[in-house]
Amino acid sequence: MSGDVKAVHRSFYEAIETGDVDLMAALWVDRPDTSCAHPGTTPVRGTPTILRSWTMLMASSGYLQFFLTDVQVAYMADGAVAVVTCTENILSGQGLEDADDFQGGQVTSTSILVHGGGQWRFHSRHAAPIIDFTTDDEEDD
Amino acid sequence: MSGDVKAVHRSFYEAIETGDVDLMAALWVDRPDTSCAHPGTTPVRGTPTILRSWTMLMASSGYLQFFLTDVQVAYMADGAVAVVTCTENILSGQGLEDADDFQGGQVTSTSILVHGGGQWRFHSRHAAPIIDFTTDDEEDD
Repeated sequence: MSGDVKAVHRSFYEAIETGDVDLMAALWVDRPDTSCAHPGTTPVRGTPTILRSWTMLMASSGYLQFFLTDVQVAYMADGAVAVVTCTENILSGQGLEDADDFQGGQVTSTSILVHGGGQWRFHSRHAAPIIDFTTDDEEDD
Repeated sequence: MSGDVKAVHRSFYEAIETGDVDLMAALWVDRPDTSCAHPGTTPVRGTPTILRSWTMLMASSGYLQFFLTDVQVAYMADGAVAVVTCTENILSGQGLEDADDFQGGQVTSTSILVHGGGQWRFHSRHAAPIIDFTTDDEEDD
């Protein structure tokens, strides 16, 4: 754990990449009003429910690797809260037997972290797929 | 404007519904580190750019009406920051000449508001479509 918000934010993805449920649990504040919107869904609320959802997602996912780009941190409330936005470039592969099994995807995420006891922890998170609107736009022209 | 975070959050949708650019501008803190992720996109950053994006969206949209459900507010940093999550049930109609022109959609949104000078204002926002995964799930069974 770390007092550096970017390091804690990065640890979140390491928890997913390594399927580390204990690390994931350590990264969240334990409150009933926390929330986590996985891509395409309504928010999961409350830390125990959020952690269960991550355990299920990590158990059902194959290999995932995250390359983060455009990471921006905004601090508010005299540094007590941070909002981290980024693009998650996700490589996924089921079994890794063939390079063709790899799939890529892009997700925009907004994470809200709170500072307490010298640690940053996740309070809320919203992740959503980036949609390619190119075809629709071109048809409109 | 109001010191009630739910009222300010609701005003945001009234600004869109009525195409009120001035109200929209009054609802945001003016900072370079604000962010707004419209559905399916990477975040727009900085208040002037965010407001331009809303002006363009409001100019290009037809009639929109928002029915908010599952509105939840989480306060942090001794009430200096609030995270408002909800489901936006959106009715849209182009021209309203025929009831069949209405279309509905659902969006999950996470809004981060900060308190200052007795007012709540938007700092960041992330909105993303709710996707119906039913067919895919059924095919997997």
